[in-house]
Amino acid sequence: MLQKLLFSIAYKAVWAAARAVITDDDDDSLLPPELPGKDDPLLGDPADEVSPITEEMFSSWSLFIMLFLLISALWSSYYLAQRRIRAVHETVLSIFYGMIIGLIIRMSPGHYIQDTVTFNSSYFFNVLLPPIILNSGYELNQVNFFNNFVSILMFAIPGTFISAVVLGIILYIWTALGLESVNISFVDAMSVGATLSATDPVTILSIFNAYKVDPKLYTVIFGESLLNDAISIVMFETCQKFRGQPATFASIFQGMGLFFMTFSISLLIGVLIGILVALILKHSHIRRYPEIESCLILLIAYEAYFFSNGCHMSGIVSLLFCGITLKHYAYYNMSRRSQITVKYIFQLLARLSENFVFIYLGLELFTEVELVYKPLLIIVTAISICIARWCSIFPLSRLVNWIFRVKRQRSLQNGALGQNIAIPDEIPYNYQMMMFWAGLRGAVGVALALGIQGEYKFTLLATVLVVVVLTVIIFGGTTAGMLEILNIKTGCIDENDQSDDEFDIEDIRPNLSYNLPDLSTTHPYSDENDSPAFSTENVLLNDQNNNKTSVGPNEASRNQFTRPFDSNSNVLDANEDYSGSRISLDGQNLKETIGNIFRSDSQWFQNFDDNILKPVFLDTNTPERGGTTPSTPPVLGSRRNQNWK
Amino acid sequence: MLQKLLFSIAYKAVWAAARAVITDDDDDSLLPPELPGKDDPLLGDPADEVSPITEEMFSSWSLFIMLFLLISALWSSYYLAQRRIRAVHETVLSIFYGMIIGLIIRMSPGHYIQDTVTFNSSYFFNVLLPPIILNSGYELNQVNFFNNFVSILMFAIPGTFISAVVLGIILYIWTALGLESVNISFVDAMSVGATLSATDPVTILSIFNAYKVDPKLYTVIFGESLLNDAISIVMFETCQKFRGQPATFASIFQGMGLFFMTFSISLLIGVLIGILVALILKHSHIRRYPEIESCLILLIAYEAYFFSNGCHMSGIVSLLFCGITLKHYAYYNMSRRSQITVKYIFQLLARLSENFVFIYLGLELFTEVELVYKPLLIIVTAISICIARWCSIFPLSRLVNWIFRVKRQRSLQNGALGQNIAIPDEIPYNYQMMMFWAGLRGAVGVALALGIQGEYKFTLLATVLVVVVLTVIIFGGTTAGMLEILNIKTGCIDENDQSDDEFDIEDIRPNLSYNLPDLSTTHPYSDENDSPAFSTENVLLNDQNNNKTSVGPNEASRNQFTRPFDSNSNVLDANEDYSGSRISLDGQNLKETIGNIFRSDSQWFQNFDDNILKPVFLDTNTPERGGTTPSTPPVLGSRRNQNWK
Repeated sequence: MLQKLLFSIAYKAVWAAARAVITDDDDDSLLPPELPGKDDPLLGDPADEVSPITEEMFSSWSLFIMLFLLISALWSSYYLAQRRIRAVHETVLSIFYGMIIGLIIRMSPGHYIQDTVTFNSSYFFNVLLPPIILNSGYELNQVNFFNNFVSILMFAIPGTFISAVVLGIILYIWTALGLESVNISFVDAMSVGATLSATDPVTILSIFNAYKVDPKLYTVIFGESLLNDAISIVMFETCQKFRGQPATFASIFQGMGLFFMTFSISLLIGVLIGILVALILKHSHIRRYPEIESCLILLIAYEAYFFSNGCHMSGIVSLLFCGITLKHYAYYNMSRRSQITVKYIFQLLARLSENFVFIYLGLELFTEVELVYKPLLIIVTAISICIARWCSIFPLSRLVNWIFRVKRQRSLQNGALGQNIAIPDEIPYNYQMMMFWAGLRGAVGVALALGIQGEYKFTLLATVLVVVVLTVIIFGGTTAGMLEILNIKTGCIDENDQSDDEFDIEDIRPNLSYNLPDLSTTHPYSDENDSPAFSTENVLLNDQNNNKTSVGPNEASRNQFTRPFDSNSNVLDANEDYSGSRISLDGQNLKETIGNIFRSDSQWFQNFDDNILKPVFLDTNTPERGGTTPSTPPVLGSRRNQNWK
Repeated sequence: MLQKLLFSIAYKAVWAAARAVITDDDDDSLLPPELPGKDDPLLGDPADEVSPITEEMFSSWSLFIMLFLLISALWSSYYLAQRRIRAVHETVLSIFYGMIIGLIIRMSPGHYIQDTVTFNSSYFFNVLLPPIILNSGYELNQVNFFNNFVSILMFAIPGTFISAVVLGIILYIWTALGLESVNISFVDAMSVGATLSATDPVTILSIFNAYKVDPKLYTVIFGESLLNDAISIVMFETCQKFRGQPATFASIFQGMGLFFMTFSISLLIGVLIGILVALILKHSHIRRYPEIESCLILLIAYEAYFFSNGCHMSGIVSLLFCGITLKHYAYYNMSRRSQITVKYIFQLLARLSENFVFIYLGLELFTEVELVYKPLLIIVTAISICIARWCSIFPLSRLVNWIFRVKRQRSLQNGALGQNIAIPDEIPYNYQMMMFWAGLRGAVGVALALGIQGEYKFTLLATVLVVVVLTVIIFGGTTAGMLEILNIKTGCIDENDQSDDEFDIEDIRPNLSYNLPDLSTTHPYSDENDSPAFSTENVLLNDQNNNKTSVGPNEASRNQFTRPFDSNSNVLDANEDYSGSRISLDGQNLKETIGNIFRSDSQWFQNFDDNILKPVFLDTNTPERGGTTPSTPPVLGSRRNQNWK
């Protein structure tokens, strides 16, 4: 009986799959031209029309294949991690899986599934990209990011610009030679240059994460590749606006003006929306409904992206800074459950999107039917992107090093910090080389290339696609080796950076840690107070490895789980102690400050932030709220006691 | 400067929105017929083509509007909850918001946004429905569900069938009268009957949740409305298969056979995939990578849905039972972090989908341009669905009551439980009336109605759409009042049902609770050991309301957070004690068993489950795994100690 059932289902599955592949006339996106207009009620001639049931079956199979690929990619990723194989990276495998399935789909008769799985730039920009960017912003180590902000901006803005221009010029000259009868305009060459200047934030960083590469290098490459995407999108769009117009010298400045306006407005949109969320959370009681709260946070962050894109601004920049602002302010106003939900859901969505993007790239190579491959052009482009990256990384690194050297010398002369400090290069040569190597291109380039217009669009798209896949395979596959060859510092444990893959119940709310002298080495509002001693897990572990807190395990657990109430009842005192504790922290932060002298320049913002912004945006006035103190347990407690109406 | 920026952005936004609305020729789904074929490289004539940038801007605005509606709906939901307004329900508001924005979009010139926001059945079935079903299955109170399984199946299967047939016959007769020149075939009438027999699981249940209605009534309506959807989909598809064929009497039996096969195979697919996940989790080390783990669990559950749909089976049934199986087995093999991530992500996705579905329904009323409204047909249909539901609920309730009475009398005569128990009706009259009232129709009906073929498809679609919206507004708006009128037991606290909207760190793994005599009243594997005493939050609350545990707060917290290690080290003893503790539990479960005598019939499964299935599917052989005991903290501990390779 069971056998019969299983046979029946297997038979049905094979039959349906076969039909999905063979049936040729089930395409709903391209209505056959002989069909009458939509208003004609006679449209529904049953002989001509695809049954929605069949249609749904096809889309089910397409989605099944996609999810199957995603599962394979994730499983490989687990397998690689488990076996400690680092020579092959999961993104490379994802691309290969995509290519294999793409090839199978291409070889099969029928085009319904092929059409469904083809790369769609609107789908990429609206569904796949936002989670990756949002999670990047949210998980960003803000201390490291803003400490290296100058370097990041330097590589992101002029770097991408140089790269795009160099690449555009080389391509224009090459095509002007007419060797492959590809003749593109200068604007198109620049467009391709812009698409191929977006470096990919995923592959390199997951390798860096696995090796725990020096946080500084990590942060610079991370920040660059994130902002990169936004900048090449803006550059691409700017180029497209100049299509058909004669390109003058003035248009470069016009483009730059447009670019800086776009960048700053987008940044502003993101920050304002992030602050809006913080204020909403602060001034409403929505934390009592954490389910609604976490939905709203996710939705409003996405609104930043779509609003920004809708206004012809850069959604990526907005979303990135919205994520940063959310983590910097709104995070502290959320309920505990929302803190956890938001963190995990951002991570999960980002993870799925990242893997899917590479599968999609692999699929695209075979399922996009119109591609025109010009081998020489591809080779020339592949070489030129290396040249272009070389031209942007090395001169700019020298510039950054020079700026930092001058700054440090000046600050030493001023005697601001009179210690005897050797002045190393801000970005030493091996870091520069690694940054050059980290210049593999990602899906943003391909998605942009889909927007290239003109006679040679499919030639250029094919070129971009192949070059992107090549860089991911070549540079992505050799990064681990390069880390060793270049003798880059690995195995760094960044104490600001709580590892993501362990269960932690987040930190107890920051303003509850005021009267804990033994834990107050961290700044009350900074990221650094993701203090490990706060997680239950650590408490649970205290029996086994007593290396996190100095108190005995039972003492610790008792301390930590009764503490919120002590501090809660003393919350007024805590607020009074607040400025004092911050001043005392300055001394303790000295070690860090010496390490990053440049940071002192941004100290004014930190002071402004702590004294003006945080009291406004964060929820510190607990006594007014009665039972609804900022930490969730009291809220729940009061909920149980039903002393709120 | 800032003012200028803000003005500039506002200007840009208005300009872009205006363009998005005004521009009329930016539709990419319907390529103009004069365009040459796709293979022609000259396709890219810049004058004819929509720039992908403009296209992306339009889709950004569409998405922005959608998310804005979603945010409004969620915010209203918070506002209603906060102000304790129960007369208006959030789903009704969602529909209204959708209608208002739909009207605005309809009145505006241009059709790009209108086309984008139109209800799309493939989008509904592939994106919006799965999270709702999956979360329902996962969050299901299994004890209550399977205790009332007979009633649920009775109302779901014959109930839906009766409802569809009655409705179909009434509609067929009415249209045959020819009063509105709508002349549909019997198969079409039955199709409409099937679409309008799917009751909506969202609105009623959220009201029931708010009022904490008696779990039994809740479970029956919940189970019915869930299975309902699956059954009406299968019935609809069966009807569609008979289109054009002469309907004979034999085809009814053929249809029923087809239906039962579909149902049982779908159920099997779901259960098998759920078990597969449990076995994968048990036999791999994937819990060391909770990020990958939670992605995989989500993806494999979705695979159940798409696989089932792809095989022409019922994805809903598969997904529902996959969710149930996941919670029943796989849950206990997950890492702690995945348990939390999966729970929260399912809830969040379901919440978003639920709200969105109603917004979509409201939008559809105005943005679907071809709808043909026939007022009389709509009124007749609205009345007939009440008649149809009446015909299914009341006779079947009597049947269920009779069956239970006979069963109870027999078990009393057999002396199995010789206590003096009064035999109340299984479903008393006020419950029956409430079930009748709970028959509001949902989005599944509309999504199915989009698949109706033939001359009158838009008439029938309009009818279904209006009737669905009417039932949601009328029945949904009056449910709260009916609860009072019918004197339904409210304010029930179901101790099996941990409230979702508070932060709980889930339960400590079941087999760690063996040597806790004071907490062992719960069955080690059942849902019931979501014991409140295990959540940190409760520990945190012990200071304030010492009503959960009898020990002092500090004692309690110390106990609970050091306990895992005691039990961990004694895990072998615990396993030896296991059978003994289960036997002793039978006595403690007596109270429950008396309440649900019918349950004794399913006792064999519970025994089989505990003795055979759970040892196979759950991860209990901890000693073999070295550091990787089933509870996550030791895994992480061993990770820290790096004693795994």
